[in-house]
Parts: sequence; C-alpha cells; structure tokens
Amino acid sequence: MANSPTGESVLQRADRILAAFTAQRPRLTGGQIAALAGLPIATAHRLARDMAAQGWLERVGGGHYVVGTRLWELALRSSRELDLARAARPFMGDIHAVLRQHVQLGIVEGREVLIVERLSHPKAVPVRASVAGRLPLHLSATGLVLLAHAPAEVRDAYLEGPLTALTEFSPAEPRALAAELERIRAAGHAQQTGYLEPGTTGIAVPVRGRGEQVVAGLGVITPAGDPAARAGAIVQALHTAAHGIRRTLREDAR
Amino acid sequence: MANSPTGESVLQRADRILAAFTAQRPRLTGGQIAALAGLPIATAHRLARDMAAQGWLERVGGGHYVVGTRLWELALRSSRELDLARAARPFMGDIHAVLRQHVQLGIVEGREVLIVERLSHPKAVPVRASVAGRLPLHLSATGLVLLAHAPAEVRDAYLEGPLTALTEFSPAEPRALAAELERIRAAGHAQQTGYLEPGTTGIAVPVRGRGEQVVAGLGVITPAGDPAARAGAIVQALHTAAHGIRRTLREDAR
Repeated sequence: MANSPTGESVLQRADRILAAFTAQRPRLTGGQIAALAGLPIATAHRLARDMAAQGWLERVGGGHYVVGTRLWELALRSSRELDLARAARPFMGDIHAVLRQHVQLGIVEGREVLIVERLSHPKAVPVRASVAGRLPLHLSATGLVLLAHAPAEVRDAYLEGPLTALTEFSPAEPRALAAELERIRAAGHAQQTGYLEPGTTGIAVPVRGRGEQVVAGLGVITPAGDPAARAGAIVQALHTAAHGIRRTLREDAR
Repeated sequence: MANSPTGESVLQRADRILAAFTAQRPRLTGGQIAALAGLPIATAHRLARDMAAQGWLERVGGGHYVVGTRLWELALRSSRELDLARAARPFMGDIHAVLRQHVQLGIVEGREVLIVERLSHPKAVPVRASVAGRLPLHLSATGLVLLAHAPAEVRDAYLEGPLTALTEFSPAEPRALAAELERIRAAGHAQQTGYLEPGTTGIAVPVRGRGEQVVAGLGVITPAGDPAARAGAIVQALHTAAHGIRRTLREDAR
C-alpha cells in the first residue's frame, strides 16, 4: 500500500474522501473535499481524480464531485442491507398504508442506529436521519430496541457514555437508561416521546433473523399525542410485520 | 498511488475486488476473490484484509468476506440514486398496489440499464435483474425507452453492436431496432414481449427530470398475454407516475 507521509494508506484516504459526502452536502469541490477530509489540497485533488477515473466519484457542473453510480452499484448489489430491506419492504408497506407515518428499519453500527430502509408519507412529521443516516442508539425507539437486545457487554459499554442529549427529555442518566432497556426487553417494544425531537413519538419492536438474534429494529414515528396513533395497535402491527420479515429472511436462506 | 507490477493502482485493484461480489455470490473467500478479480492470491488476501480494516469488506463465518456496511453507507447516503428512488417510490407504490406486478426504475449506465429501484409482488412473474443489477438496454422495455431518448450519437454507437440476443425474439438487427426506437419516441412508451424472457411483457415510459432530459425509465413487467395487463391502462398509469416523480424532483431541487 502507498502510505502518505502520515502513514495513511490510499484506502484510508479514499474512505475519508467518501465520508466527506453526506445527504446534506452531496456535491463538493476538490477544495471542500480537502477541508472536510483533512487532506492536503494537492492530495485531495489527485485522489479525487483517481477515484473519478474509477467511477467512484463523478464530476458534475461547477467543478463539483458527487459519489459515483459505480460505487453505489458495487456497494449495493450484494449487500446484506439490500436483502434485509427487500425482505422488510412489503411488510413496511402494509404498516405504512394504514398509519400514513414514517416506518423505518435500522441496524446497529457501533453506538448508532443506521437507517437501512424508510417509507415516508409526504404529510408525516419531519424526521432527522434519512436512509443511510445514523442516530445515537438511545435517542430513537428503533435504536433503543436494538440496544435493549444487544449483548450485555455492548449495553454496559454503551451506558458508560457519553450519552448525548438533544432535548430536555433525552435520557442522560445511565441508571435510568439501564432500567428503561430492562423494561423494553420485558415489554417487547420501545416507546419514546421527545428524546430526539420535541413533539415526536417513536415506537419500535425487534426483528429477529434466521436464529433468535435480533438483526434489526422496526419503528414507526408519529406526532406525539396523535389520537390516531394508538400505541397498542401500532405495537401489534409492528410485531406482525417483524414476524413476516423473519419468515421471509428464513425462506431466502434456503 | 502504489502501483502493482502491472501498473494497476490500489483503487483499481480494490474496484476489481468489489466487482467480484454480486447478488448471486455475495460471500467469497480470499481465494475466490483472487480468482474472480484476476489478482495474485497474496495480493488479494492482503488487499481484502486492508479493505476489511476499513469496513469496506466484512469477515463472516468460514473465512468468507462480504461487502461491508460502511461502504453501503458511504455509497448510498449522498447518492443521486437514493434521491431518485425516494422521489419515485410513492408513485411506484401506487402502480404496484393496483397491478401487483414488478414496477421498476432504471437509469442508463454505459450500454446497460441499471435498476435503481424495484417493487415486486411475491406472486409476480420471475425476473432477471434485481436492484443494482443490469440488463442490456435493448432487451427490456425500461432500457428501450432510455435508449430511444438517448442522444443521437449514443443511439448510433449502440446500434453498432454487439446486440446480444437472449431469446429468438430479442432484436438483433440494427435497422429493425432503430425503427423500433423511432416508434417508441413517437408513441411515448416502449413495449416488448419475450426479448429477455419468453412469456414476459415489459411496458415502460420515460421519466424526465428538472429539465426536459430523460433521467430514468419507469417500467412494469407482466406475464405476456395477461388479460388483466391492458397495455393502454398501464401506459396511462406509468405516465401519471412519471409526472409525479418529475414534480417531486423539481420540488426537491428548490
């Protein structure tokens, strides 16, 4: 591997360049890439050109780059995320058709939930993270249900913090959060209001895979206090969908 | 860039390793990677380890690698493919709910159509390519409608071939294909039966973006001769959806 003066490999630098592109800033100039990736300008320009030659980046107007279709294709076509999303989507669609709110599927990535799939309704409540976006595990119902079912050592490490708080309702005290995770395991679902956004309620259940392990969280996001959003009915619908997803994953494995 | 003895860069070799993973073979050993990517075994092993350290690949059981969640996230979160799929999905859902057949959205990539999004019904007719899969442009209705609206020089280059034939009905004669593209432009939609699979009919319309240019093809795949699949009604539904997608893309751009 070619190492830079700081000992970084080409792959590490390419990763930092790709990480500079987000949903909020999908188009970047060479100079912006250098600044965001923390690379010397000449290095960023040269590597961006090499990545563009490979189709991993693409040049668009005004000297901007975007992440390339080639990388999208390579990353997606064999991905477990695509398999999971494909298995989940018909069941998510059923819930979505009835509730007309966001329905999302997330997996654990480090200390965060990574949104793998989401169905949104144009009139649904605004939400923070979109597909391929992340949120701290303890701030969304989808994340909480994943954290509650994570191995004990993962939970313990998580509780050591830091526990970011985004609103006055965000759980910031480890012991209170540990007790909440206990309740989630006992109840079989998570429910939170205002942890992430004031006025928003999330409800989520675990999705088990081919074995007993929890592979994803399936959640609905509704306006807090929405009379149409009866928690009991939503939990029931989510559990039914989670069973359907599991059955599909098992059938796919044959 | 570190070049191999053959002058290939790390990025080129990493690209070849990623390209070894497909929907049909999502799990590969180091040896399989080497064979499929055409790399010396030691090189493939070392680079796969480096890519795994970066999260671009992940190790799973039995000495196998899969494409990593990190790469999925980096490639997807800022992608134009995700924007297009997100804009299209509610309209695709409406068509899907009525027809209960595959509805797909494709873009041009070289001489092929790349499937960006698909909604499938469990009982729909089996199809070849899945999401992030490719098909030659002239063999599916979605591809034909894209080819028909491509710039004249792209069409001319395409017609020079080779024109792969997969069935006895596949168009293999450049002049006949050129005439068909002309008819598609005049009619505003493409329809083919059996070009890709005997017994399968595809119908597709162009999706225009913020300007007048065609940015995607939107198609439905049905069993040939299905009395429920009336072409006129399907074309009308597809045009309505294509207008809705365009309106959403325009609103997103504000």
